[in-house]
Amino acid sequence: MPRPDGRTPNQLRPVRITRNWLRHAEGSALIEFGETRVLCAATVEEGVPRWRRGTGEGWVTAEYAMLPRATDTRSARESVKGKIGGRTHEISRLIGRSLRAVVDFKAMGEYTITLDCDVLQADGGTRTAAITGAYVALVDAVRYLRKQLDLKTNPLTGSVAAVSVGIVQGQPRLDLNYLEDSVAETDMNVVVTGTGEFIEIQGTAENAPFDRKLLDTLLDLAVAGCAELTEIQKKALSE
Amino acid sequence: MPRPDGRTPNQLRPVRITRNWLRHAEGSALIEFGETRVLCAATVEEGVPRWRRGTGEGWVTAEYAMLPRATDTRSARESVKGKIGGRTHEISRLIGRSLRAVVDFKAMGEYTITLDCDVLQADGGTRTAAITGAYVALVDAVRYLRKQLDLKTNPLTGSVAAVSVGIVQGQPRLDLNYLEDSVAETDMNVVVTGTGEFIEIQGTAENAPFDRKLLDTLLDLAVAGCAELTEIQKKALSE
Amino acid sequence: MPRPDGRTPNQLRPVRITRNWLRHAEGSALIEFGETRVLCAATVEEGVPRWRRGTGEGWVTAEYAMLPRATDTRSARESVKGKIGGRTHEISRLIGRSLRAVVDFKAMGEYTITLDCDVLQADGGTRTAAITGAYVALVDAVRYLRKQLDLKTNPLTGSVAAVSVGIVQGQPRLDLNYLEDSVAETDMNVVVTGTGEFIEIQGTAENAPFDRKLLDTLLDLAVAGCAELTEIQKKALSE
Amino acid sequence: MPRPDGRTPNQLRPVRITRNWLRHAEGSALIEFGETRVLCAATVEEGVPRWRRGTGEGWVTAEYAMLPRATDTRSARESVKGKIGGRTHEISRLIGRSLRAVVDFKAMGEYTITLDCDVLQADGGTRTAAITGAYVALVDAVRYLRKQLDLKTNPLTGSVAAVSVGIVQGQPRLDLNYLEDSVAETDMNVVVTGTGEFIEIQGTAENAPFDRKLLDTLLDLAVAGCAELTEIQKKALSE
Amino acid sequence: MPRPDGRTPNQLRPVRITRNWLRHAEGSALIEFGETRVLCAATVEEGVPRWRRGTGEGWVTAEYAMLPRATDTRSARESVKGKIGGRTHEISRLIGRSLRAVVDFKAMGEYTITLDCDVLQADGGTRTAAITGAYVALVDAVRYLRKQLDLKTNPLTGSVAAVSVGIVQGQPRLDLNYLEDSVAETDMNVVVTGTGEFIEIQGTAENAPFDRKLLDTLLDLAVAGCAELTEIQKKALSE
Amino acid sequence: MPRPDGRTPNQLRPVRITRNWLRHAEGSALIEFGETRVLCAATVEEGVPRWRRGTGEGWVTAEYAMLPRATDTRSARESVKGKIGGRTHEISRLIGRSLRAVVDFKAMGEYTITLDCDVLQADGGTRTAAITGAYVALVDAVRYLRKQLDLKTNPLTGSVAAVSVGIVQGQPRLDLNYLEDSVAETDMNVVVTGTGEFIEIQGTAENAPFDRKLLDTLLDLAVAGCAELTEIQKKALSE
Repeated sequence: MPRPDGRTPNQLRPVRITRNWLRHAEGSALIEFGETRVLCAATVEEGVPRWRRGTGEGWVTAEYAMLPRATDTRSARESVKGKIGGRTHEISRLIGRSLRAVVDFKAMGEYTITLDCDVLQADGGTRTAAITGAYVALVDAVRYLRKQLDLKTNPLTGSVAAVSVGIVQGQPRLDLNYLEDSVAETDMNVVVTGTGEFIEIQGTAENAPFDRKLLDTLLDLAVAGCAELTEIQKKALSE
Repeated sequence: MPRPDGRTPNQLRPVRITRNWLRHAEGSALIEFGETRVLCAATVEEGVPRWRRGTGEGWVTAEYAMLPRATDTRSARESVKGKIGGRTHEISRLIGRSLRAVVDFKAMGEYTITLDCDVLQADGGTRTAAITGAYVALVDAVRYLRKQLDLKTNPLTGSVAAVSVGIVQGQPRLDLNYLEDSVAETDMNVVVTGTGEFIEIQGTAENAPFDRKLLDTLLDLAVAGCAELTEIQKKALSE
Repeated sequence: MPRPDGRTPNQLRPVRITRNWLRHAEGSALIEFGETRVLCAATVEEGVPRWRRGTGEGWVTAEYAMLPRATDTRSARESVKGKIGGRTHEISRLIGRSLRAVVDFKAMGEYTITLDCDVLQADGGTRTAAITGAYVALVDAVRYLRKQLDLKTNPLTGSVAAVSVGIVQGQPRLDLNYLEDSVAETDMNVVVTGTGEFIEIQGTAENAPFDRKLLDTLLDLAVAGCAELTEIQKKALSE
Repeated sequence: MPRPDGRTPNQLRPVRITRNWLRHAEGSALIEFGETRVLCAATVEEGVPRWRRGTGEGWVTAEYAMLPRATDTRSARESVKGKIGGRTHEISRLIGRSLRAVVDFKAMGEYTITLDCDVLQADGGTRTAAITGAYVALVDAVRYLRKQLDLKTNPLTGSVAAVSVGIVQGQPRLDLNYLEDSVAETDMNVVVTGTGEFIEIQGTAENAPFDRKLLDTLLDLAVAGCAELTEIQKKALSE
Repeated sequence: MPRPDGRTPNQLRPVRITRNWLRHAEGSALIEFGETRVLCAATVEEGVPRWRRGTGEGWVTAEYAMLPRATDTRSARESVKGKIGGRTHEISRLIGRSLRAVVDFKAMGEYTITLDCDVLQADGGTRTAAITGAYVALVDAVRYLRKQLDLKTNPLTGSVAAVSVGIVQGQPRLDLNYLEDSVAETDMNVVVTGTGEFIEIQGTAENAPFDRKLLDTLLDLAVAGCAELTEIQKKALSE
Repeated sequence: MPRPDGRTPNQLRPVRITRNWLRHAEGSALIEFGETRVLCAATVEEGVPRWRRGTGEGWVTAEYAMLPRATDTRSARESVKGKIGGRTHEISRLIGRSLRAVVDFKAMGEYTITLDCDVLQADGGTRTAAITGAYVALVDAVRYLRKQLDLKTNPLTGSVAAVSVGIVQGQPRLDLNYLEDSVAETDMNVVVTGTGEFIEIQGTAENAPFDRKLLDTLLDLAVAGCAELTEIQKKALSE
């Protein structure tokens, strides 16, 4: 039961973060989880959504999308279809929620940071790569904002990383690639802070319900994987 | 720290299931979790989506929506806005996935069952009420299908119920109403089979990351709550 | 030539109005014309549409919709199709116009009342049931508004009810159900004030042009039917 | 109380029908009711809508639209807004229904005739001008179809014309122009066959409910007006 | 190799401009290039697009569209399809750019002139006819604006006309009709000022790349054709 | 009057082509014109658009888009707006036409090749970079198709490259970057075959009409620039 790319069950794919891949964005990172490549761009804009105006608090939001040929077969553009699909909506919301969990909006003032996560190439784990990369872009955007506004308090209250785990042929595995993901019995995406607490857990029985014991094993794998990702983020941000 | 409606932390709201509330649908149920009221209708149609044709297997899908004045303030209709919001997409997908986990598609033949879950009144927990009620409508639709096609094998492999749990002012609580939900630190929706296994876990740190211990407590609450809901479903279905 | 449900030609179906079916709305009514069930909710909001601002006058508008499985076969959601159909538009406009005919906008101030009429189950006559039920919800919303703003003048100048009439197999009939409606030679929807004057007449030759004499008979039937509905509304509103 | 253009209360505006205004269409007419100008084009196409296939019967449908500067102030294009408004939907459906009332679909075979009615200039009565002109275009399209298919039976069973009537300052008037229409207490559009029977009656109390006597006067005016229009159509079609 | 309508290679089709074809618009022209007929309407409105507010400068924009049966076979309405096609977008933008090239926005003040160019009948060259006719409507709208605001400086700095040229069976030809256009090897639209300078050149190799010499011949033809059109515009505007 | 990046007037920016940047696509190239970066992916699919079926001929089409933060300020996603803008449409069509000019559709069989050109970073000249890069991706896709189908005849009849030229402060310049483009008096995009013939010329007077002499100078610059690009393409394709 070896993994298709020869990894051990608790091994991440090679992770690479290229900071400032974009010239215009206030923060950006091209993040690679193996063959999965997501371009994360952070934009700082004055003002907040209408329902938040006048509160003195900022906002962080995210948009996720996939290039048509990121995948094995071409998918039609959502702009051409004229509407956004449910999967896109779901992932955009997940990324936004995950990042907001480590932001102190009062410390930001009425500014909005938008994280655009565009999947250039997909090989499983695009949403977790997006969260992990978006955090890096967010840090740079927050640094920019602090400098511009001379903010005393750091609007970031922690760090965030995410990874997928799943059961493949009965075996719990970390960071599934597309091949594994498409045959997994259970699939879970876990978002964890730098201090090892949970921000989001999304576990889905794809082919068979799972019990408490399996759940516990998967959570252990995920927490360990996120700790590794946290180190990789730190390294990228210190360069 | 009493609950707004006087319940104990591990107590469900009064749950009421009115089967066959609709005259035309092959299965239907009006389900109430306290003041939350969701009308679930199951439609049986010949044929399956294009990508499934020729496989001999059936399909189950769901659509969730809310009437404009189900909530405290009126929200614009998605039909008028011309597009479906992210939250609607996300919940529709969750309901569909949850029900599909207990369906044997091979036993159905190329038929589609669509579950329409329309929230007539909202007071928290609409998605979990929808899953719990949709299962009842699904059972009746499957009975109809079996009769029509004289199916030997039961396409249903189990039952499914769902409940929300959360941390309010540090206290783990079962089946949050809107008031509690809007101030919860952590909010989790859990979908469980009739035999107590997990189909879906969606936990979100709304205001503060949560640790493993809290997670375990919440899961215990949810599993117990779903066991009660399973009994209520059984009772409704035996009438 | 008996009617499918045994009624006499000039007999309404059993009409039932459940006031305050909804908890949040400023006015609401679940109205039933036999098997036809429409949920009418009135929402009071400060402000008026852009083109009316600064006039000191209020506005009343309506939106009609049908749940996907209100009918015998499921129809796709307009939100999913991304556009509203002609029939929906037409009926929404009719309901709004009918109610506005009994409103004194100057007496309201710059407030808008929106009537949401959602058909939960359809068996013919949904638009006339919607108008008749929406009037009841409107009365409660206006009472709420008067109380809130301490309005001296009643913004309602009369009452309004509506019924369908038609020619089936040459026989003029009141309040057609779906079975009758689908084979009617002529179909007419008539909206009448509590004092028996016309607000709207929409007569359509479905299968054969009709002459003046037939028209007169249909109008007589409709006026008598609306007088009965007016009494039923009064009774519901006095409880 | 003279009319703005000096007409007597029961006088039509000058009506002009230019047949074959278009080169490509199987039938076409530019119809003018005074300053109101509608270009009506009939297109014959093989095939019918999906729900009618295999019945051996044809179909007639209509689409109404207004150029942006047909009116006094420019209105945004519905193509730019990305959706069709309620008024457009309502009128398109009315035109289609009115024409279908004089068509024998069995005699057509599975062909569709589409009537495009585009308002080039609007001065009240655009929908009635559209119906009256569309009938002329329809006749030419049916002649074309009969010739092409060598049809023995005439698919047209009668003729159709339409006119608006209304109460302005208490006075019943025929064929209102925009100025009169915008201040009318009551406004009615009446569609009548060449033999004087009703196809459609749409009466609306714009500012005040109306009684049976007023209704009778308006219907008399409308029937007489349509008789004149029928003669004008005949003349145009015989040229 | 004679042209289908007997013209010489450098001969325009009969061009007819009917000014003030519309009653409401501040400027309008029905322009005909042979069988091609475009109705051009200019609307003057106070205010400019958001991005231009506060600059003191005006704006000129254009919208092009085609009636469904302007062409040999009926095309679906863009309003019904819910979106504007690429060709429509492209031509609308071309018309706007072409007219803006002869406008001094500072002299206009913050007013917007919108040119609606609706093709009533198409036989090739609709975009060049639209530009040539829109200029005439624009002149009348600018005259109206100057009068209303008592503007000292003329916001128009020149005139503009446009024509198509192409290579058909190796022969360079002026002002192609549809028959020629559909078989042309190369097709070019050229927009020229009244003084013979270029505003826009759009040359496309439909079937075969073209060389510099051919390009030069086509440009000569186009410049001469536009000079003729300029004279026709002048004549129309002096009437 | 030096150029902002120190180039001579007839000098291209550094051009870099990275072939096979994507793993899944049948052909792909990341092309850079200085800071402008466009990812071009070619997808081969069986079948052709409906209107081309049964002809035995293939089809080549293109879609252009820009990531939200490719530019200096973030632009809203077209998928979120629910419609494609005019500029996007226009450029997609230009790329498709340009590539089709060097394709022999008969030699392809009924296959479609779609070129997705996504601008990851924009600094002027995105459409010409897209054409130049898309050609490289197309070559690889055609090689793939030839191999799969064992095609004897090469469906490619030539090569294609594109460049922008313009007048800045009176000086004709090759390959404008964004800074130059935004102040250019005239802007022209020229698409040229590998043998130096024209496929498309789009010249626009942004601020001032231009005369024949200037046009000639610009065309000379463009032809020379495209010859250089052709060499760079050849080199990339031979690696």
